[in-house]
Formats: sequence, C-alpha cells, structure tokens
Amino acid sequence: MAGQSNELKLLGTFSSPFALRVKLALSFKGLSYEYIEEKDLHNSKSELLLKSNPVHKKVPVLFHNGKPVCESMIIIQYLEEAFADAGPSLLPSDPHERAVARFWAAYIDEKLFSSWMMVFRGKTDEEKAEGTKQSFAVAATLEGALSECSKGKPFFGGETIGYLDVALGGFVAWIHAIEKLYGLKLFFDAGKTPLLAAWLERFCELDAAKAVLPDVEKLVELAKMRQAQAAAAAAAAAVAQDN
Amino acid sequence: MAGQSNELKLLGTFSSPFALRVKLALSFKGLSYEYIEEKDLHNSKSELLLKSNPVHKKVPVLFHNGKPVCESMIIIQYLEEAFADAGPSLLPSDPHERAVARFWAAYIDEKLFSSWMMVFRGKTDEEKAEGTKQSFAVAATLEGALSECSKGKPFFGGETIGYLDVALGGFVAWIHAIEKLYGLKLFFDAGKTPLLAAWLERFCELDAAKAVLPDVEKLVELAKMRQAQAAAAAAAAAVAQDN
Repeated sequence: MAGQSNELKLLGTFSSPFALRVKLALSFKGLSYEYIEEKDLHNSKSELLLKSNPVHKKVPVLFHNGKPVCESMIIIQYLEEAFADAGPSLLPSDPHERAVARFWAAYIDEKLFSSWMMVFRGKTDEEKAEGTKQSFAVAATLEGALSECSKGKPFFGGETIGYLDVALGGFVAWIHAIEKLYGLKLFFDAGKTPLLAAWLERFCELDAAKAVLPDVEKLVELAKMRQAQAAAAAAAAAVAQDN
Repeated sequence: MAGQSNELKLLGTFSSPFALRVKLALSFKGLSYEYIEEKDLHNSKSELLLKSNPVHKKVPVLFHNGKPVCESMIIIQYLEEAFADAGPSLLPSDPHERAVARFWAAYIDEKLFSSWMMVFRGKTDEEKAEGTKQSFAVAATLEGALSECSKGKPFFGGETIGYLDVALGGFVAWIHAIEKLYGLKLFFDAGKTPLLAAWLERFCELDAAKAVLPDVEKLVELAKMRQAQAAAAAAAAAVAQDN
C-alpha cells in the first residue's frame, strides 16, 4: 500500500473481550492505531458507534482510512487481507487449515460464549447449572481442538499466535477476573483441560498480549459495580410493585 | 493444482438450505462433485456424518480428497481459496467489500434464520407474532444491504453472483415452499422489499441455480409430513398423560 495513507482507529471498551481480540491482533501484527474508548456502552452509545455500526450497535469497530469494519473475527480477517505484508499472518496459509481455524472460531462464539452467559446470566439455578455443565463440555471439545490445531506446538497457530489464539485470547482477562470473583476456573483447569491451562499461562506471558490485556482488578471492580446496579434495580422494581 | 487429484464429494440433504448454499457455489464455480444424500438426518445419522462432523453432526460436509470441511459459509470460503483458479470468484477482491460481504452473511445466519424459526417453531402465538415482526425488520435491513452491495447492479455480488447471493440463495426454495404452504411472502414481498423481490426472481432464473434448486413441491410434501408427525407425537403424548 505504498503511497496510500493507512490510518487505523479502533473503537472499543476496555472490558470488551471482542474489542480485545482486535487489540491482540493489531499488537501481534505490530500495527499502530489510535484507540477510542466507547465510554458508556450500556447507557448512552456514542454517535460514532451508532453511525459506524447501525445494525448491531456494538464494539469493536475498526476504521481504516475512515471506513468502518465491524464484528471482531471479520475485522481480523480484514487485517489479514488489507495488511497482508504487515507482521505475521494469523490465518494458516493452507486452505484446509484455514477452514479448520474458522470452524473453531465460530464454535467459540456460538458455544463457549453462550455457555458462559448461561452461567452468569441464567435466571434459575437449573439454568446456571446447565450452563456450567455445557461450559465444561465445550472446554473438553476445545482441548481436542487445541491438540488438533497445535500439533504439539505451544499455540493453536503452531509455534506462533494464530487466528484461534486471538479468538480465545479475547477472553483470558475475564477468565482471570471470574476466578477472582467466584473462585471458578471456567475451563482453564489444569486438572480437567491441561493443554488449555498451559496455553492460558503461555498466552498471558507474551509481550504482545501483555501490552493490551486489561487490568484484571479493573474488570473485577466493573463486575461488582454491575452486580450492585442490577441488585439496586431489582430492589427498586420490588418497591415499585409494593406501592 | 496440476498433477494433484481433486476429488470433491458433498454430503447433504435435498431439503437443507445450508447444503443448497454449497451446491449453488459448486454450480456457479463449475466444479464437479459426487453428491451423497444423508438419508435420515432426523432419526438416524450416517456413520459418515458422525465421523466427519462429530461436533455439530450437521450437513453439509464437503470432502476434498477425503478431508472434511464443515459449515456452509466456511465451505464456500474454502472453495474460494482451494480452487482460486476455478470459475468465477464469489468473494469480492477488495478487502473492505469482502468484510462487508462476511458481515451480511453472518447477519443472515444470526438474524434472518432465527426470526424464521420463531415464526415456524414458536411455542405461543406471541412468539410467532414476534418472529414475524422480526423477520420483516430483518428483511428491511437486508433490502438496504442489497442496495449497498449491488450498487444498482442485479446481484449482491454486482453483475454476477457473489458470496451473499449464495448465502441468501440457500433459502429461496423454502421461501417458495412456505408461500405455497401458508400464503406467506416471508420477506420477498414486492410491496415491502422491492429490491429483494426482484432479486429472488432473477436468482431463480439463473441456469446454474436451476440446476441445483430442489423441487418446491417436494419441500411442501416434506413440511406436511413433518407437521403430521409432530401432530401425531403431540397426540400420543396427550394420550399418555391421560392414562
């Protein structure tokens, strides 16, 4: 892209695992960008967000020379294609291995994230228990995927970070925050999924990951604040019903 | 791939919109393949399916020289990459346009299909009504996407069929079957979404589409048979409860 301007901006929140995926990809690829924090995603979305992602109104949004790209894994594929010469490639070069990486990334989004949501947002104890059961089953499946993709090497991408490392890497800070909050080793439990547990440790030690991973204490504070807000809203609703 | 064997096999069902996407892509690209019908997906999955897609146990599965690739849109990207020189490209060459195509394909899978499922599998009238409302909203959004992607040309891909034409094209036979069954123009209603309605007509007239589109009458029969089976099962359950 010689001679062309290549201005990158990323709209995200410090706590979004999906924005983190893009930060990780940019960091691993060594691409510099301006970061814009979406300040109050839950109560008042910015004009920039509403204009650039009118369909989902979600972060992350990447702007390349002003043009928006939405959805974390689509952004990462975009970076691979628009900056093919910049930094290491995250997707494998072999078409079959690329298909396998896309398959597992979709699995993470479809099954892993939804099982965690059941654990933390489930309305009944049964729903939460079902979420926990599902999340352990998903973890066991991903343990097999790591074995298949890494072929005994340190990462899903082999010797270096790849597409799936970034897909799963978006969640590592929240995994640590949840362990602090609930003492719950979501699935990176050395007893149950030793390969994933070792992967988690290795991943968090990478300089390019450390450079963008959010402070776990801040996530813990955020989670406590949201819990307190939810409890206050529930109490207010109960009072309103009584009157 | 000179000198290499390039054996393609597709495992699908005649009624699956997701298998149809792959048949459409293979047809538009002019790739020949052996087709294997998964005979009784609902009651007894074949060994081939269970072995080649153990995670989701769903069709379609494409086999390239014996190696399985799963998930319809991942298969289509695989065909684009593994057979880059065969037939027309479905994804645009421009990285930003590719990201836009991937965005809308994900939207179709996430929002369109789920709204239809609410209409047809909703447990209450409220749920069905909500599904209908959502499916019209999704259609209105897709009408905008067609305008954005086609830039006034006949297809999402422009002058020729592209990635999104195939993503949406998988549903056209069922759209016609549902119109016959319920008189319901799901969203391809010229009054509400004139661009999509014109697209539907154009798409179904393409020789490469006609070559693989299933017989609408057969889909109508299948739907009636499933409804009868569901009614019989519900009646049997009611009798069992009475005793």
